[in-house]
Amino acid sequence: MNIANLEVTALYDGYVRFDLDWLKGLSRDTLESLLNDVFIATDDGIQTAVNGYLINTGNNLVLVDTGAAECFGPTMGSLVDNLEASGYKPGQIDTVLLTHLHPDHSCGLAKADGNAVFPNATIYVPQVEAEFWLDTAMEDIPEANQAFFSMTRSALAPYTEEQLQRYQPNDTLLPGVESVPAYGHTPGHTAYLFRSGTENLMVWGDVLHNHAVQFAHPDVVIEADADTDQARASRLQLLSSTSAGRFWVAGAHLPFPGLGHVRVKDDAYSWVPTEFSPIMNSAGTPEQ
Amino acid sequence: MNIANLEVTALYDGYVRFDLDWLKGLSRDTLESLLNDVFIATDDGIQTAVNGYLINTGNNLVLVDTGAAECFGPTMGSLVDNLEASGYKPGQIDTVLLTHLHPDHSCGLAKADGNAVFPNATIYVPQVEAEFWLDTAMEDIPEANQAFFSMTRSALAPYTEEQLQRYQPNDTLLPGVESVPAYGHTPGHTAYLFRSGTENLMVWGDVLHNHAVQFAHPDVVIEADADTDQARASRLQLLSSTSAGRFWVAGAHLPFPGLGHVRVKDDAYSWVPTEFSPIMNSAGTPEQ
Repeated sequence: MNIANLEVTALYDGYVRFDLDWLKGLSRDTLESLLNDVFIATDDGIQTAVNGYLINTGNNLVLVDTGAAECFGPTMGSLVDNLEASGYKPGQIDTVLLTHLHPDHSCGLAKADGNAVFPNATIYVPQVEAEFWLDTAMEDIPEANQAFFSMTRSALAPYTEEQLQRYQPNDTLLPGVESVPAYGHTPGHTAYLFRSGTENLMVWGDVLHNHAVQFAHPDVVIEADADTDQARASRLQLLSSTSAGRFWVAGAHLPFPGLGHVRVKDDAYSWVPTEFSPIMNSAGTPEQ
Repeated sequence: MNIANLEVTALYDGYVRFDLDWLKGLSRDTLESLLNDVFIATDDGIQTAVNGYLINTGNNLVLVDTGAAECFGPTMGSLVDNLEASGYKPGQIDTVLLTHLHPDHSCGLAKADGNAVFPNATIYVPQVEAEFWLDTAMEDIPEANQAFFSMTRSALAPYTEEQLQRYQPNDTLLPGVESVPAYGHTPGHTAYLFRSGTENLMVWGDVLHNHAVQFAHPDVVIEADADTDQARASRLQLLSSTSAGRFWVAGAHLPFPGLGHVRVKDDAYSWVPTEFSPIMNSAGTPEQ
């Protein structure tokens, strides 16, 4: 779809299922009732989308997050296929912005043979996130987590130090693109704000994991949040800023395509998904 | 997506824009406020999806509605392209169920050269709908409406009398598929109920045209409704039955993919779109 001069394509990588017990702060009965109200089945875990976003700014062809590739089995790993189905080739991507280095966002950087999927791209990672995932000595990592660290390190391995840009919170990355620190889910978890004309598009990663629960109950945290207090504060801050500014939002784990707006509702928020729209060509008619 | 043993593919034909004034029963201010609340722009008409549905029942490959083809310009007419992109060919379709004969639902039956798009399909149309659109003498039709009648007649022209099945309200069409009269929008407007295991899927046409207005205010009618009182009664009946039965719903003018559920909310209803899910292969993993 088009947002001002941005061409935005949501790329479905697939889905993951997580158990209801991963959501902390409400009783299981309350959670089941919230999900049941919106016809979400809970008996086999909650189906949760994994989305990436391709944004053509006119100057840059930017991919935010890269999907899970083969790190987590056959329900994920379709991002590159869907990128190609949308008419682009991975070699055309000049910029990859990573919200964080969890493997469902980073494994898509590398092919199974170890080569780079995006050989012509600069990969931007917040300095604090890169330090945590790439520089921590393996012996200092709990054994249960070592596999995740290995996956992420393998995914980044094919890229040179020059291609991998570790940036500071206030660095300008690209014209019209700002990083917005949203630390907590991981040490350097970050959203990206794209500005075009009067429109703002906030692309976030793991600010929340379930739209049916966490917009209405933003205090609920998830098992995977590294620092729950910080993650909660970041979520509240982003929900407040995106709803107040009527920003467009794109979310990695919102129901595909994960594009819409945040609206204030009662004392909390609700998610308003946008209507699907085709991408328009220069004549103002839908591209085939 | 899969619903019990049904494989359901939503096919986007495109979109149409209609003016806010087409919705009758609320003030323009109230309509604008309802739409603005959910971030729907109203300054250039309301963008409204045109969807068709391909349902593989295991026994039959069924298409409900066929899109607008070239009847209404370049924003519509993508249904067959999207059918092919989903891995099927028009020649494989054995059954076309038409909700009604408005050209945005029927023009897709014929190619620009006048040949049949679905040469191997039986086309089911309610008897009362066929009589109105096909048997009314042209001189008895108001001049402003004659173009619509011509479009529909051209769309059906390539099909033999045997292929075009005019059915009565209680006829059984296919195993597990019932017609559900929802007259009013047009004289024979009809929904189709697919049953599989414990699941029910109601595929409707023009039961309503705007989710942000007509679920919460089902009394609102649209300019295009032929018999507004009958259309309103049909809408209330279908909203009641689908919400009470927790049926799956697929709607021709609901935001693409237009699949979800109807929920009772306050004294009316709300629309709960379903989360996108890939179609699974026999191994229980997503098809590529």
